[in-house]
Amino acid sequence: MNIANATPIIDLLIHPEWIIPIEPAGITLTDHALAVHDGRIVGLLPYREALQRYQAREKIELPGQVLLPGLVNLHAHAGMTLLRGYADDLPLMTWLNEHIWPAEARHLSPDFVRTGTLLACAEMLRGGITTFNDMYFFPDAAAEAVQQSGMRAVLGLPVLEFPTRYAADADDYLSKGLAIRDTLSDNPLLSFCLAPHAPYTVSDRSFEKIAMLAAQLEIPIHLHLHETRHEITESIRQHGVRPIERLNKLGLLGPQLIAVHAVHLDAAEIDLLGHHGCHIAHCPTSNLKLGSGITPLAAIHARGINFGLGTDSAASNNRLDLFQEMRQAALLAKGSSEDAAALNAHAMLAAATLNGARALGLDGQIGSLRPGKAADLCAVRLDDWLLQPCFDPASHLVYAAGREHVTHTWIAGKLQHKESIPIHIDVSQLLTGIRMWHTRLTALPVT
Amino acid sequence: MNIANATPIIDLLIHPEWIIPIEPAGITLTDHALAVHDGRIVGLLPYREALQRYQAREKIELPGQVLLPGLVNLHAHAGMTLLRGYADDLPLMTWLNEHIWPAEARHLSPDFVRTGTLLACAEMLRGGITTFNDMYFFPDAAAEAVQQSGMRAVLGLPVLEFPTRYAADADDYLSKGLAIRDTLSDNPLLSFCLAPHAPYTVSDRSFEKIAMLAAQLEIPIHLHLHETRHEITESIRQHGVRPIERLNKLGLLGPQLIAVHAVHLDAAEIDLLGHHGCHIAHCPTSNLKLGSGITPLAAIHARGINFGLGTDSAASNNRLDLFQEMRQAALLAKGSSEDAAALNAHAMLAAATLNGARALGLDGQIGSLRPGKAADLCAVRLDDWLLQPCFDPASHLVYAAGREHVTHTWIAGKLQHKESIPIHIDVSQLLTGIRMWHTRLTALPVT
Repeated sequence: MNIANATPIIDLLIHPEWIIPIEPAGITLTDHALAVHDGRIVGLLPYREALQRYQAREKIELPGQVLLPGLVNLHAHAGMTLLRGYADDLPLMTWLNEHIWPAEARHLSPDFVRTGTLLACAEMLRGGITTFNDMYFFPDAAAEAVQQSGMRAVLGLPVLEFPTRYAADADDYLSKGLAIRDTLSDNPLLSFCLAPHAPYTVSDRSFEKIAMLAAQLEIPIHLHLHETRHEITESIRQHGVRPIERLNKLGLLGPQLIAVHAVHLDAAEIDLLGHHGCHIAHCPTSNLKLGSGITPLAAIHARGINFGLGTDSAASNNRLDLFQEMRQAALLAKGSSEDAAALNAHAMLAAATLNGARALGLDGQIGSLRPGKAADLCAVRLDDWLLQPCFDPASHLVYAAGREHVTHTWIAGKLQHKESIPIHIDVSQLLTGIRMWHTRLTALPVT
Repeated sequence: MNIANATPIIDLLIHPEWIIPIEPAGITLTDHALAVHDGRIVGLLPYREALQRYQAREKIELPGQVLLPGLVNLHAHAGMTLLRGYADDLPLMTWLNEHIWPAEARHLSPDFVRTGTLLACAEMLRGGITTFNDMYFFPDAAAEAVQQSGMRAVLGLPVLEFPTRYAADADDYLSKGLAIRDTLSDNPLLSFCLAPHAPYTVSDRSFEKIAMLAAQLEIPIHLHLHETRHEITESIRQHGVRPIERLNKLGLLGPQLIAVHAVHLDAAEIDLLGHHGCHIAHCPTSNLKLGSGITPLAAIHARGINFGLGTDSAASNNRLDLFQEMRQAALLAKGSSEDAAALNAHAMLAAATLNGARALGLDGQIGSLRPGKAADLCAVRLDDWLLQPCFDPASHLVYAAGREHVTHTWIAGKLQHKESIPIHIDVSQLLTGIRMWHTRLTALPVT
């Protein structure tokens, strides 16, 4: 019997110093390797065993590095990346009414969205993000950029009552979105969600329609919710109840709902979201920067609500960096609850990977290094002298390292970023596009 | 008349894309250059004028970069950098009693402090920090590392009532500290402060002595103050009053006092600190990570209290990174006060430079790009594609860029760091020392 003939040939074997698989939770493996074939993880096993079991076409040695699942950005407006730092340090309503919305009213176009999304994809890949959940206009233009970049994305089909350069009214938004979904349905890296903008921009009738569609199509609903006190006060004034109660009556609460922000929650609302199995997209940097407030994350976690992390847009952050959000979420939860043990490093790594995937209904495909899942991965260098000494790689990823230490990003087994270079994005061409938009955005002052 | 003969020869002319001089406040210059001679800034002027006015021995062109004063880290325990991430996600008292203090009791030595401080200096230089205010044991060992690195430092002379491997009792700490100060008094880059550890570790008698000494020697007092609720409760139990009131009675409040942390302050205490002209060293990451709480920075700023930014130690942060602290301080002030306009980018840049210098009594020498001051500078690359587009360099420094974008750090006109390489620190030798300590720290589990 020839043993060698029985040794399967695989595409790739990765042998880093450490592997954090996320499942099982809370562990860090050493002397292990990850086997990848045909875009999927086929084995996570001791390195010596892997050498015996597989013949790998490519073998990557990563001493001093940690391998983990690619990060999942649970809330983005990728197209807005052209507005990075466009108007900072301003009160929220001034920022929106006098800067962001007028700029969008003047400049929004498929090319604006394509260029902004491509920049967002390049930035996210460089920081180990492999999947993002988007909410913006012209999702078809966003899809072009996403497909070029090689990323995985959940494209929100936006719904608002008021007209923009993209659509005229809620029905128009919906029909445009559903048509885009039909056109792009055969791309394995793209999926879709319904993205009603917020309780204050969407009517009861539209919400009911969206709830029905989400159930029919079995796709998530991606919604800004309880971001500011103003939103809540206005809902009470207009609808007699707080937004969450209104949504509950309209049948929107359930495991298909991704509530973005959820900054201002009372105990009963935390319980209600928990009871219905809703997910939260926590965006700590954006919530702080816009002066929205501090999310009660320790209480949300204690209630067992699933939460992931989002960057929000580059106009309110100003980086699309989940390393920053992991650190910020952990620090803020500890500081605001005055409990240093609240939300540890492994909990944050899970939030930025598996929990985000779960909110999107993609946890069967991505979010952990379980064999059978897609090989969406990132490798992070912890051997930079700046990070020494290192006692615990998980803790180092959250509190000491940064996205600048990410060296490789793979999606479905394909390397899409290495050492600051996105593989399928022509950066100099992208920069030409950004310069053009920068000139337009500064040459026409918004009045 | 020969005009050329009248053109002064200077050491260095730097011509970046932008200059943020901090004084005058809130401005960003373009088409300007900074002239440096004999370690000092001799001119800040339009570039064309500079070319006519000076003959520079060296000219550095920095397109796409911003030049600003070197950053001032107003609170550090540099020697503790060997304990980076040594014990994370633990309640404060568990962290101190079961991990940090036992590790120090076992390992503290001049070599521990020298190695840790050298690592801290390397890390700080790489992130644009030119001056730090230290508080740790064996300041003479710290001074050796500081002198090797080329940094500027204010060395705290620590005072506690209880014995450590460094000293036996408060009088011993004081006499050791003063002797060290005498020995090192002729180094132009070193100065000193008295560093009573905290209200709960220093007696009334020692505080009175320290107040007297600070007045005699005209040096600052560097003290942890109102860091946790526990500290305040214990003070009320033992002394009948909150720590600030106790210090007020002991004559400690005044412009020589740098109150580190100052997390828990009521309105009367903010007013009292303001009335006495005390300074605050705000350490937002550490305060959050240890679960201490959230400093009322917007109220402190509104009262006109001078505050700088500190990293605290790498055991509670876990990076010595003032870019992170600028962003964190701005975000946290906005989020906790629910005011997006609180503490803007220029205010943060001033906190991290001139205001820190002012707290240390060094604002006549460093902290802004005023001619006559020492040429303590850093240059930051904003032309990384990751940071595009850029509408406002000041805002970009605080919200988008990171220490990874710092390319040059000068102290007293000497380049001490360029492109991630500290000029006077042998990194491979340093790594050997760190590995040795890592082995000791992990081989002898603290019981």
